[in-house]
Amino acid sequence: MTTLAAPEVLTRCRRLVQPALQEAVGRLHPWVSEMAAYSFGWCEVGGAPAVASGGKGVRQALALLGAEAAGAPGRAGVPAAVAVELVHVFSLLHDDIMDGDPARRGRPTVWKAYGTGPAVLAGDALFALAVETLAGAGSDAVRLLSAALSDLVRGQADDLLFATRPWTGPERVRPEEYRAMAEHKTGALLGCAAALGALLGGAPPATVAALDRAGRHLGVAFQIVDDVLGIWGDPLVTGKPVHGDLRERKKTFPVLAALDSPTSAAARLARLLGSDGPLREMADLVEECGGRSAALAEARRRMALAETAYELRPLLDYLLRRDL
Amino acid sequence: MTTLAAPEVLTRCRRLVQPALQEAVGRLHPWVSEMAAYSFGWCEVGGAPAVASGGKGVRQALALLGAEAAGAPGRAGVPAAVAVELVHVFSLLHDDIMDGDPARRGRPTVWKAYGTGPAVLAGDALFALAVETLAGAGSDAVRLLSAALSDLVRGQADDLLFATRPWTGPERVRPEEYRAMAEHKTGALLGCAAALGALLGGAPPATVAALDRAGRHLGVAFQIVDDVLGIWGDPLVTGKPVHGDLRERKKTFPVLAALDSPTSAAARLARLLGSDGPLREMADLVEECGGRSAALAEARRRMALAETAYELRPLLDYLLRRDL
Repeated sequence: MTTLAAPEVLTRCRRLVQPALQEAVGRLHPWVSEMAAYSFGWCEVGGAPAVASGGKGVRQALALLGAEAAGAPGRAGVPAAVAVELVHVFSLLHDDIMDGDPARRGRPTVWKAYGTGPAVLAGDALFALAVETLAGAGSDAVRLLSAALSDLVRGQADDLLFATRPWTGPERVRPEEYRAMAEHKTGALLGCAAALGALLGGAPPATVAALDRAGRHLGVAFQIVDDVLGIWGDPLVTGKPVHGDLRERKKTFPVLAALDSPTSAAARLARLLGSDGPLREMADLVEECGGRSAALAEARRRMALAETAYELRPLLDYLLRRDL
Repeated sequence: MTTLAAPEVLTRCRRLVQPALQEAVGRLHPWVSEMAAYSFGWCEVGGAPAVASGGKGVRQALALLGAEAAGAPGRAGVPAAVAVELVHVFSLLHDDIMDGDPARRGRPTVWKAYGTGPAVLAGDALFALAVETLAGAGSDAVRLLSAALSDLVRGQADDLLFATRPWTGPERVRPEEYRAMAEHKTGALLGCAAALGALLGGAPPATVAALDRAGRHLGVAFQIVDDVLGIWGDPLVTGKPVHGDLRERKKTFPVLAALDSPTSAAARLARLLGSDGPLREMADLVEECGGRSAALAEARRRMALAETAYELRPLLDYLLRRDL
């Protein structure tokens, strides 16, 4: 039932938020506004109408569901939805620069299409616009947003540093460090979306806090599901090459959990990761060391924690049960 | 009198603000915190105590003077001072990436020393921290800051685009466009500093608005004085090569004002700027076309406008009369 209903939820939310989001982006400097519109998937380079489609709009949907959880109409959460979508696209823009990613959703990333400097600037503009959007919503709203922003930056810093750390030894990345990183990098903004929506909908502090926590768990679950798909997902469904995350030697949860097992298979996996080993064998070793099952267990645990905020369930089912 | 007193004002303000600023920066992710401390001139790469000195701290001083203008003790303006200094360093960090500047105050810029990605991240962290710092100060404070942030980005966008425009013809940059750019890029944050300080000091809206305007005029004056020094300043005083801004073909106010004169000297100047002409002759032509005197007149006019906020005078004298 819910797996069918969820895309409808997303569509309904996008329809409510889109006009306000476009109005906000339209107030930017024209050059910056084009880069922002390109990032949202609304236009191509030069301003022509888009062929590509934008993101699913999970964050804006969480903000509206948060408002509805407070007993308010979804539209009460629109400023929250606009702010979190702006922050999300800001973070994609800047993360793509930091990670050197040339493509996103089948199109060149902004720094590839417009240059690094302009992409930095466009991100800054979206960031400023997000704060401006919420400035009128009161101190508590700004506090929630700025806390999420701080967490976002902290998570990205850890993620960047993970890449420089070894696969084994005392300096290796532990699964619990990964969970903290994912909660900051992905969970904080999802939690903020739901919490901000609830706040604008007039929810009491306990509800706001509960939705924040639920969104954070959802973020960790979401990230780990992505990790599983990044190794074993069907390229036709994910749009990414099979074993792609292993080829790029990404420190994902299944791999880190596998390496944490005190087995000879884990030692062999570490050797392969440090050399030019076959990706298929790496994937099999991750599975043999329990990395895949540990990831799925952690995702399910987080999903169950997120589901205590029952208002979010239609989305959770859609987002997390998709291909597992 | 005031030219002697002004550095004392700056020192006094730095002493009041420094502990709070260091405490805020210390809350960042350790890696990001080091990059921030490096930008502030507190440490070298790796964290060793700094040899270099930081900036003058004009923005923090304006925030404290703003609070005092409201009849409050300077320390009432400390959160405003911390926020605007964080925003200032954020903008230096990102602008240095966009402009490709390899050095600042005799040291490698952050992107040169730590890499582009980390410098983007450190800027983002400072930005988020600035918003967090003010989140507790109320909606009006956040509104002032976010308006300044938007102006800052708008000014930087225009400045970047100026570089791509021709010296002559209908697409040339007019002096009035330059003034708008300078007000956004430099004036907005100075105005915000004084206005935020006044707001936190309990000033009525009219005083807050007057200080905002004064700071904006100050910013334009400051930028134009910098432009004059960038062409005719003594390298021993400015620390920059003589005619440096002409060598880099920067579209500064004296040059744009000179090109705006309908004379054959202006036409010759445009030709030299478009070729590899001698810098000394360009400087002379800018002067001959009235570019230098127009710049000084505009700076004096803006200074006079800024001085209507008499609380800021000790700083104004020091900042603007220095080497003219």
